[in-house]
Amino acid sequence: MSEHDPAQNSSPVFTLNDVRVVMVDTSHPGNIGAAARAMKTMGLADLCLVSPKNFPAREASDRATGAQDVLDQAKVVDTLDDAIADCGLVVGASARSRTLPWPMLNPRELADRVAEHPPGSKVAILFGRESSGLTNEELARCHYHVHIPSNPEFSSLNVASAVQVIVYELRMREVLAEAQTERAWGVEWDQPPANSQQLEGLFNHWQQTLVEIDFLDPTNPRTLMSKLRRLILRAQPDEIEANILRGMLTQIDKSIRKP
Amino acid sequence: MSEHDPAQNSSPVFTLNDVRVVMVDTSHPGNIGAAARAMKTMGLADLCLVSPKNFPAREASDRATGAQDVLDQAKVVDTLDDAIADCGLVVGASARSRTLPWPMLNPRELADRVAEHPPGSKVAILFGRESSGLTNEELARCHYHVHIPSNPEFSSLNVASAVQVIVYELRMREVLAEAQTERAWGVEWDQPPANSQQLEGLFNHWQQTLVEIDFLDPTNPRTLMSKLRRLILRAQPDEIEANILRGMLTQIDKSIRKP
Repeated sequence: MSEHDPAQNSSPVFTLNDVRVVMVDTSHPGNIGAAARAMKTMGLADLCLVSPKNFPAREASDRATGAQDVLDQAKVVDTLDDAIADCGLVVGASARSRTLPWPMLNPRELADRVAEHPPGSKVAILFGRESSGLTNEELARCHYHVHIPSNPEFSSLNVASAVQVIVYELRMREVLAEAQTERAWGVEWDQPPANSQQLEGLFNHWQQTLVEIDFLDPTNPRTLMSKLRRLILRAQPDEIEANILRGMLTQIDKSIRKP
Repeated sequence: MSEHDPAQNSSPVFTLNDVRVVMVDTSHPGNIGAAARAMKTMGLADLCLVSPKNFPAREASDRATGAQDVLDQAKVVDTLDDAIADCGLVVGASARSRTLPWPMLNPRELADRVAEHPPGSKVAILFGRESSGLTNEELARCHYHVHIPSNPEFSSLNVASAVQVIVYELRMREVLAEAQTERAWGVEWDQPPANSQQLEGLFNHWQQTLVEIDFLDPTNPRTLMSKLRRLILRAQPDEIEANILRGMLTQIDKSIRKP
């Protein structure tokens, strides 16, 4: 086997199997069915429903047509944390710009970003309520937000249509880019990305420590934790880096409690 | 005025107003409503219906939500010829490859092709029946066919979802053409990036604090500071974010010195 064997040198394959569609608090089961159909047409199968109002439901199955298998395999959970705990990259669909700017992708950039993500580490894409989208708190769980560049005068995209556009871009990325995939940060990384559970543990610990040292006033938290989250999430910490920060916080806790 | 005057050399403006969506023999009025909504969210308004089975209809209006104006202005005609007579470019959505090969675009290539089309000349994009798509005769009226690269094992895209994908690509083409400058993180940021001096001050302070709390052994520092630097620099902190971290370190220093 030569040292130029392409199989040896090739990057791991980008796979749509690593992508989970997470629908939060969906009101209309028809939209869940339509989203399942959209996913299957584009080659995705991992659907997670956070406290859907009405599911399973006849209307979901009707709109899913041949994608009933995606509905059957859908995981129904109570909280967003349950849906994303094992995910190394979390992206939330956002219709509008927020008071606190957050790293923002369009769907094509999202597909590029997903393609760069280490294979084997799950990617979650979150879609919010039909009426009001994702809450600020939910959006603060995300590394990135994705915005479909809709008509500013009528940006009311149906949630299943939003799923369709996003999964279409993911499929296009896979179809167009049998070519070499670029790695995140331009190099092979030596550690897996910290998952959402590890990151939430970090942020919770951080918040407690900040309260303890009187840096954060729990009665007037303002945007401090959001800004810390946004900063750290932009960097997409790997597991070692997340552990270093946790270790530092533990050590701060010990130091301030010393007699 | 020099011959390099950019205004003189610029291409004519690409406009979504020149694009007509033509739905042929649509069975379910809900799909017409959903298509109207998809169009309006992406900035299109010219909808033409060729012998729809049931239109106008309550279900169409329900699914259109805020895009009733697109339905109200939709032209209903008897034949495909009536729908495309004034069009200089006609493209038909095709789910499968035909026995007779035809110039085929994917939706992104279609958007490029539409953008190159002379302004003022209408472009028609044809979408066929829910059950069977466009006939061979209808497809033979087209300059190009457009195929959405669906999962070969389940290519049954809903017709309104197909409209959504195509008009999304048209809008993306317009939005990207307008984009003059790329912005870090994809949004207008509200703070300038921290400069190198501020960041070095931050890292020096951080290191001292870590030594003070016995988290960093100055005789055996290993790669700890390098990893923290790498993490924070990846996120490209803005001035406020850098100040927050500095403030946190100052507060840690105070806390551990408390009697």
